[in-house]
This record gives sequence, structure tokens and C-alpha cells, in this order.
Amino acid sequence: MQTLPGFRDFYPVDFAARRYIFEGWRRVARSYGFVEYEGPTLESVDLYRKKSGGELVGQLFDFTDKGKREVALRPEMTPTLARMVAAKERDFKKPIKWFSMGSFYRYEKQQDGRLREFAQLNCDLFGDHSVAGEAEMIALAIDLFRTFGLTEKDFYVRINDRRVWEHFLSERGVTTERSEEFLQIIDKLEREREEVNVAKLATFGIALPELREFLARPAPILESLAVALADRGLQDFVRFDATIVRGLAYYTGVVFEVFATAHGRALAGGGRYDDLIKTLSDGSVDLPALGFAVGDVVLEKVLRATPHAAEKLEAAIRADHAPQVFGVIADETRRAEAVKLFSELRREGLRVDYPLAAMKVGKQFQLAEQAGAPFAIVVGAEWPQVKVKTLATREERVVPGESSGLLSLVR
Amino acid sequence: MQTLPGFRDFYPVDFAARRYIFEGWRRVARSYGFVEYEGPTLESVDLYRKKSGGELVGQLFDFTDKGKREVALRPEMTPTLARMVAAKERDFKKPIKWFSMGSFYRYEKQQDGRLREFAQLNCDLFGDHSVAGEAEMIALAIDLFRTFGLTEKDFYVRINDRRVWEHFLSERGVTTERSEEFLQIIDKLEREREEVNVAKLATFGIALPELREFLARPAPILESLAVALADRGLQDFVRFDATIVRGLAYYTGVVFEVFATAHGRALAGGGRYDDLIKTLSDGSVDLPALGFAVGDVVLEKVLRATPHAAEKLEAAIRADHAPQVFGVIADETRRAEAVKLFSELRREGLRVDYPLAAMKVGKQFQLAEQAGAPFAIVVGAEWPQVKVKTLATREERVVPGESSGLLSLVR
Repeated sequence: MQTLPGFRDFYPVDFAARRYIFEGWRRVARSYGFVEYEGPTLESVDLYRKKSGGELVGQLFDFTDKGKREVALRPEMTPTLARMVAAKERDFKKPIKWFSMGSFYRYEKQQDGRLREFAQLNCDLFGDHSVAGEAEMIALAIDLFRTFGLTEKDFYVRINDRRVWEHFLSERGVTTERSEEFLQIIDKLEREREEVNVAKLATFGIALPELREFLARPAPILESLAVALADRGLQDFVRFDATIVRGLAYYTGVVFEVFATAHGRALAGGGRYDDLIKTLSDGSVDLPALGFAVGDVVLEKVLRATPHAAEKLEAAIRADHAPQVFGVIADETRRAEAVKLFSELRREGLRVDYPLAAMKVGKQFQLAEQAGAPFAIVVGAEWPQVKVKTLATREERVVPGESSGLLSLVR
Repeated sequence: MQTLPGFRDFYPVDFAARRYIFEGWRRVARSYGFVEYEGPTLESVDLYRKKSGGELVGQLFDFTDKGKREVALRPEMTPTLARMVAAKERDFKKPIKWFSMGSFYRYEKQQDGRLREFAQLNCDLFGDHSVAGEAEMIALAIDLFRTFGLTEKDFYVRINDRRVWEHFLSERGVTTERSEEFLQIIDKLEREREEVNVAKLATFGIALPELREFLARPAPILESLAVALADRGLQDFVRFDATIVRGLAYYTGVVFEVFATAHGRALAGGGRYDDLIKTLSDGSVDLPALGFAVGDVVLEKVLRATPHAAEKLEAAIRADHAPQVFGVIADETRRAEAVKLFSELRREGLRVDYPLAAMKVGKQFQLAEQAGAPFAIVVGAEWPQVKVKTLATREERVVPGESSGLLSLVR
């Protein structure tokens, strides 16, 4: 019996890494005043069909349930979120700042860094259309990676605004119906062969050198965002790059992606999607929106491959697993008293481990050290006194075996 | 667009309740030295067929994926866990103490407290067959409810051992093939009409009065467990009750359920399943096992209906949502400095909110109070000094606008 291809078991050491990433995400998102939400894992397929574009429908884990409903494991959060916000937006003060961390499912060909079940952090801001909001979201995206020890040497944010191209196309008399097609060319520009680019652009009456020249110029529309980011001291973390358009059709303005420098991989991506709520609510709710998602798979790869970040990760995994106290029962006739004491310490929130079966004292100390516990509390002949031993220094103190006094020694 | 029946949206206020429950579970399980793991949401249907009994197969969200695999959303954790443990048990010191919190899926008729997507905490102990281990697991189950403010008035643990009935049946010459059938009668004994019970028992040659007499006597096999629990001071939380057999076929020894006194509902259930790993590994791994699961749906209902527990829950929800600092920008020309300062505080881990758009100072203070922030930091004409205002007392202090000094004032 094995996991399905593209699905993962998280043994405790794997889970500790996952928890380190999730708790880092949560801490940073909350520091920005975002509050957490969650949606269902299974949704009606219609929710994904309805979202304009529907790029992900072909990759759905979709099926007909026992009640004849067409359902799908969620491939992304945005449609669920937009549904939730549209349904109750009047209940919330604007701007709405929400984040969520969950699992998503895409039936994709398995490849390095792509799994069929993966986790994503989603951060979204609704009801704000300001550059201040855009700078806030990009600052949040940056801090989400800095918190793990990554620096401006390890990643940067590529920023663009889709309106740059709207403007470019309208100046050249290209109709808006063809803009999505044009953005696909821009999206693939750096990966596609030159003659293919030339041929595709020709259908728009655009020459490649003209396009290259346009790309080299800074876009006036992004100037105030550049200033807002520089005000925050983030200029070294960002690059404005008009080739960034992001794949999903629902983006309407600023788009950005966080890029891992040494890995050539995107760590996060998002942008403004001011029309999606309106589409999904059949016009009844109109709210500007700006959001991004961070995946867990590539991030963990990058953290493990970046020495200063990998060290932090490894330390967190070790700390996650170690008990704070290892209880040593040196006299089996005192087991009841010992277990009661350890239970009290646990109820105070301490992580306490102890052997369930009788065992030589030396063996118990060995277990304590292997577990990485900083302290051992030895219950034995001295009861109602106990020995508190600091395992690193082998210092011992004999103190009353009462949880109240012990707590301050081992916390 | 709505959620599917039996699935939930967690708006931030709902999610805060969920997080309170999850973090309580995590804190207590970790205090007992349990480490966290996770498995995939989707598994091969065979995994659930293979587990003896297969009671849940009829309730599966199962389908054929795009690769023609028969797959199912997991209806419970135990088969995944047993698969994981069987695959790598040599890598882990015994006893193995693992817990997990995740979502599960059953296509059931919707009813009060039963959803199609629900969360469960699973705690399992492998490689221990002692009464000490059983007492430890039951103590853990008890502390998992005490941590939310529930007391021995609100819940208790019903305990039995399936071997009590094995013994009973063998004494009466009933073959082991019929023991599962007999346990189903015991399971339904208190809910079934008397004449049905009498008729069913007659097929075993057993009279109802004989059974009732047996039920009234304490079982010698459970005596040492009763002592171990009393040693921990838990006697008021437990009742030995031979009618408890738990539905799932894989239990082999001690079984128990946590019961909400005023609600007449089970909050948790589990027991010893010493043969399951062997079955799932085709005999290659043999490990004693003992585990239980706690669901989120009934627990949250009980917490909300129990005044002292509901108060704790409500306080946790309020605390979850409130920023620690609300940044007031009293002079828009100082916005850049203000945002930089707030960003520094955030990077120190403080939850800081501030308005993205220019706004009257009075309105900003109103937002700060509505958000429940304990402090406001006012950046204005005094810059590089700032005002720190304690919102409850209206006390104000003017201090340098440097994050290092401010931190100690507002933490």
C-alpha cells in the first residue's frame, strides 16, 4: 500500500518542516492585520467553470458524488474566497484583509516541485484600490520570505501592471478581444524561440524590436508604486518587468511574482482582480481585490538549498520534536507520584515525556538526551524531593517535587 | 453559488473558533510528548477495503481519477496511519506517540452534529501493550477536554475491554466467528427494544437477565487500569461500562468513549487495535496499537453550550482578531515614516493595523477601538517623537518613534 502519485505522507520530521512554514506564514500574515479563514475542500465544478478563463478545469480532480452533484477538489482558493466575500461583504469593514492556508489539488503531470496535493498560503485584500494597498501586499509578500531567513540575494519580486499592455495595445489599435492572446505571447516571450515570437507579433502588426524597446522603458503607471516600496526600504527586493503578466485571465491591474534567484522558479504570484467578485456574484457585488498565493513545495526546496535558511529550518525541526522535560523514574515504587507530577507539569503546558515501562536509570538518561530534552526530573528515593538535572551541563539541584516550584526551574 | 451540503465555510470568526480548538488539541497532545504527522487527503480505495470490516466503504466519497485509479477522500485516519507506521516502523523508537489534525469526508445523511467534511484529532500509541500506556492515553483524552474548561460535570469517559465479552462468550461456548455479531447486540443494547434484544440473545443461548447481571459486575480485567487512573486522580472522570464496544471491527482490547453528559453525545472514541498493522502489512509488521479520535463538530457545540467553556472560547475569538497596535497617522506628510515604523514593529512579530487611506484622526481612533487594539501609536506633528496611547485608560506617553523602545511599551 502506497500513497497515490503526487500525494505526500508527512512523517513527524516532515510535518515539523511543514509546521515551521505554516507558522511562519501565519505569524507574518497576522502581523499585517490579516485574519484567517478557510473554505471547503470540495466545491461544485460550476464554481471553477464560472470563473472567466477556466484554465484549471482540465486539471480538476472532479467527479459525480453519490447525490449526482458534479464536484471537484479545489485547485485554488480564489473562487471559494470570492464566493465567500460576495455572499457576506456587507458584514465586514473595508478593507477586508484575509488569509488562508490549505491544501489544493491539480491532476498535473508530476514534475520537480509540482505535486497533485500541495499547500498554499492565500492573502487577499478587498475594498481597496490604492497604491498604498498594493505596496502593503507586496511588502507582506516580501516579509513572508524574509521571515525564513531569505534575503534580497535569494529572491526578488517582479512587478508589472496589465494596464501597461492595455495601453500599449490600444495605442496600436488592437481590440481588447485579442488582449488575452497578446498577453500569452508576452508570458512566453523569454522561453519561446525568436522566430515564433516574431510571427505571432506580426499578427498584431507589432515588430519585435518595437516591443523590446517598450520593455526597456519604465512604465509611468508604476511610478507611484515604486516610490511607495522605496519609502519602505524595499527597493532592493523589487524589479519592474513588463514581461510579467501572470497566467490567470482574471487579473486586471498590478501583477507580481516572487522569484527565487538561484533556482529560477516562482515562489509566489498574484495581482489585482477587480472584476472577479462582480463576475461570480452576477453583478450584485463590486469590490476591488488584490491577492497572491505562496506554495509550500518550491519554498521548502529553496529553504533547504539556502544554507542560512536551511539552518533555521533544521533548528526549528529539532526544537519541535524535543520534550522540555524528560521524567526519569529512578524508583518504580514512586511511579504513581512521578506520573502525577509529570501530569501536573503537562497541564501547565510543558512538554513532558517519560518511560511507560520500568527501565534502568542510565537507559532513561540516554533516552532523555536522544530526545533532546534540556532537563531531566528524577523521581526516586529522595521523594518528596526530586532532582532536576540540566542535561547539557550535568548540573543537579534537589528541590521539592511540587509542580509550582519546578515550573520556574525548567521553563 | 453555495457550499455543497455538509461542507462549511469558515469566515474569520468561525476560523478563530476552529483555531482555538486546534491549538488546544495541539498544545495538550504535545505536552504528552506526542509529535504531529499528516497523510494525504486522497487514498486508494483499497486501503479502506483492506481494513477488516470496511464499515465506512459505503460512505466514501470515491471516484475514478483521470489515471483510472479508484480513489477516495479519506473517511478516517487510522488506515493511513497504519500504512505509514507499517512502512517505516524500524526508523522510530518505541513507543511511537503520534497525533494528527485534519479533515475527513463521509457521504452521510446530514444531521445535527454530522457533516460530510469534518475535522478530527487522532492520537495513537504504537509498540506499547501496557496498562500504563492505556492510562496515559485515557488521561490524554481527558486533558484534551479539560483544556477547554470542561470539567467532570460536563463529560466522562466510558471504558470497557472487548476481551470482557470474549471471555463471556467462550465461557458460554459461543464460537469467535459470532463475536462481532454479538458485540453489535451489546452496542445497540440500550437503544433497542427489549423483545428484540431477547430474541437476538436467544440465538446465542443467552438470557437477558443473565446478561444484565454480568453487566452489573466489575470486570477483573479492568482493575489495574482503574487503579492507574485513580493514581492520577482521574477516578471522577471515568466509568467502567461493559456496554461500550465501539463500532469498528478492528478493536481488540480496551475501548473507550468520551461522553458529553448533558448532551448525550460521544465527543471522542477509540481503543486498542493490536492486529490492524499486521493485517495492513500482510503480516510483515506486528505492533500493538492504541488510539482515539476527537471530532470538532460536537465538541464546538458542547463548548458553546457550556457557559464557562463558552466564555473561554469567546475570549479566545476576540483575542485572535484584535491587533496589538493600531497605527494612527495624524499627519499625512508623515505617512512614509509611519508605515516604515509599523513595518518594523510587524517584523518584531507584533500585529499592527493602520488605515491605508488618509482619514480623520477621530475616525482612526474609532477604528482602533472597534478592532479591540490595546494600544494606538500616533505618528504626527511630533515626529520623530510618537504618542503611545493606552486605549482602555486613555493614558498617553510621548516617546521616540523607534521600534526598539516602542516594543517594550506595547508588547
